[in-house]
Amino acid sequence: MADLRSKFMEVYSLLKSELLDDPAFEFTDASRQWVERMLDYNVPGGKLNRGLSVIDSYKLLKEGQELTEDEIFLACALGWCIEWLQAYFLVLDDIMDNSYTRRGQPCWFRLDKVGLIAVNDGVLLRNHIPRVLKKHFREKPYYVDLIDLFNEVEFQTASGQMIDLITTIEGEKDLSKYSLPIHRRIVQYKTAYYSFYLPVACALLISGANLDNHIEVKNVLVEMGTYFQVQDDYLDCFGDPEKIGKIGTDIEDFKCSWLVVKALELCNEEQKKALFENYGKLDPANVSEVKALYKELDLQGVFFDYEKKMYEKLSASIEAHPSKAVQALLKSFLGKIYKRQK
Amino acid sequence: MADLRSKFMEVYSLLKSELLDDPAFEFTDASRQWVERMLDYNVPGGKLNRGLSVIDSYKLLKEGQELTEDEIFLACALGWCIEWLQAYFLVLDDIMDNSYTRRGQPCWFRLDKVGLIAVNDGVLLRNHIPRVLKKHFREKPYYVDLIDLFNEVEFQTASGQMIDLITTIEGEKDLSKYSLPIHRRIVQYKTAYYSFYLPVACALLISGANLDNHIEVKNVLVEMGTYFQVQDDYLDCFGDPEKIGKIGTDIEDFKCSWLVVKALELCNEEQKKALFENYGKLDPANVSEVKALYKELDLQGVFFDYEKKMYEKLSASIEAHPSKAVQALLKSFLGKIYKRQK
Ligand SMILES: [Mg+2]
Ligand SMILES: [Mg+2]
Ligand SMILES: [Mg+2]
Ligand SMILES: [Mg+2]
Ligand SMILES: [Mg+2]
Ligand SMILES: [Mg+2]
Repeated sequence: MADLRSKFMEVYSLLKSELLDDPAFEFTDASRQWVERMLDYNVPGGKLNRGLSVIDSYKLLKEGQELTEDEIFLACALGWCIEWLQAYFLVLDDIMDNSYTRRGQPCWFRLDKVGLIAVNDGVLLRNHIPRVLKKHFREKPYYVDLIDLFNEVEFQTASGQMIDLITTIEGEKDLSKYSLPIHRRIVQYKTAYYSFYLPVACALLISGANLDNHIEVKNVLVEMGTYFQVQDDYLDCFGDPEKIGKIGTDIEDFKCSWLVVKALELCNEEQKKALFENYGKLDPANVSEVKALYKELDLQGVFFDYEKKMYEKLSASIEAHPSKAVQALLKSFLGKIYKRQK
Repeated sequence: MADLRSKFMEVYSLLKSELLDDPAFEFTDASRQWVERMLDYNVPGGKLNRGLSVIDSYKLLKEGQELTEDEIFLACALGWCIEWLQAYFLVLDDIMDNSYTRRGQPCWFRLDKVGLIAVNDGVLLRNHIPRVLKKHFREKPYYVDLIDLFNEVEFQTASGQMIDLITTIEGEKDLSKYSLPIHRRIVQYKTAYYSFYLPVACALLISGANLDNHIEVKNVLVEMGTYFQVQDDYLDCFGDPEKIGKIGTDIEDFKCSWLVVKALELCNEEQKKALFENYGKLDPANVSEVKALYKELDLQGVFFDYEKKMYEKLSASIEAHPSKAVQALLKSFLGKIYKRQK
């Protein structure tokens, strides 16, 4: 595992140096330095779960067969493409959300001399993905499918981001615009496709699979991604800040969280009034009112119930899959997130 | 010509309605309305030169042979992909430049309730291109080349935008960071590839050509695109505002314009001092000083000279091309821009 991570980081260095020498552009010294600093600041600093899961998935699909150096490299390269995609979305999301910090450091656009140039940096991050794919996968039989896959998932993520952004405007005028169907849609499109489906789809493609034959795998992973985000919403309020590494602010930020959506579904008129009055305010007194209401409605119990049902449902879908290797892969994903505390 | 434009607009409506019904995303009513409004505001309102030139180029490559309905549609669809690409870059450029108006109306991000959501709208515009390509070109033998082409040109444009942005930071500290080589690089990458090469490359691909055999065509078009931008810089200061439809502000905006770069090249120490003192200031007195200096250095004469040499050089390259159809195409491009006043 430590080995895998260091191999993965080696591939990062290689991809970066290729990008900094891309013959399609004549770099100046200043622009080469800019891109290098921008990449180091934004791409490798996360948990790398999504990227590493391409390699894990690929191994499981190969059923214990040793991977060649070349196969490991290709899986790492695709893993990095997903990390690049994520960096692109995060750089732009922080600008739109007017955020201050990300992964324990100031957001990229907050840096001196960066500012809104970060918009173009986000675009550059995105543009690096097809450069990597062309360089390393152009001759593969699945090249077109790989490009189509990244394009489709990016489109879905940007569309999910759009409904998140416009729902928040509506929600701020009228909290009852938030509902379970809209929450499901935001989460599914903004997070689940790129975080859960994309790594596995990449692994399937390099294994020689046809994605059209794996719609059921996609459905399970998208559902798992949705469940993962519901956990995220739950932990934001009820998790241990020590464990999750930050203090949640979804209530203050007027987020369309699973908790507020559930609260709206379960509350009586009086409780609804309290929710409307206190949600989305910075004052700790308002936040406490919301949290008290969540406890009154036993949202923790509601969540545990949801989690149990979700686990059963996902397990049943996984058991129904004809391939043992795919079962093992999906179980490994589910095992990593079930009852997670962080 | 009026016919061509109305056909082109018909295709816009069709592509838009397909995008608003894309099965890869579950639109809500609000998000469908948002995208429709965003497209109508940002995509079709320009001069459409780039888009229409795909169809013109295709006709010339077919040497008078009548195009079928289907061929016209495909050329229009690619023309619109270029207009979508341009819209994407303009929406984001206006945010980064903190601009107020575009095409005679407020910039998209200036609208009430849009703001920085425009960043994601730019991303959506960009994502629409592969959706259109996949829907209408997936089965064509040149599908992969088309995707690679759009990806490469987008990468070059974003890279050109990057050096423009970081050069402006440097230039504001020290004007002598502006130079002819850096100007050429900005212009070539930020404008020439997508405005001149991309439409012709699209026409070549649908004609069945292999782009690897047309490097010389690319070189001529990129040089023409560079010349076009030099004209743009010239007209910003010396053109007739009535004809170009706006009052130039490159001097006030500290732009790395061909004029300032030529002035830096030709000036003596005293003139250089005047340039450093007056360039990039809003006060009309400073602007007048810069303009007086441009006249002292006879930049108009220098430009006429440049234009004449450029015309001769480009004409010679065109004459050297083995195909009469390609010659006709390149001559038509050159004829449209030579000695243009707007
Ligand atoms: Mg955010
Ligand atoms: Mg956000
Ligand atoms: Mg959260
Ligand atoms: Mg601008
Ligand atoms: Mg600009
Ligand atoms: Mg100009």
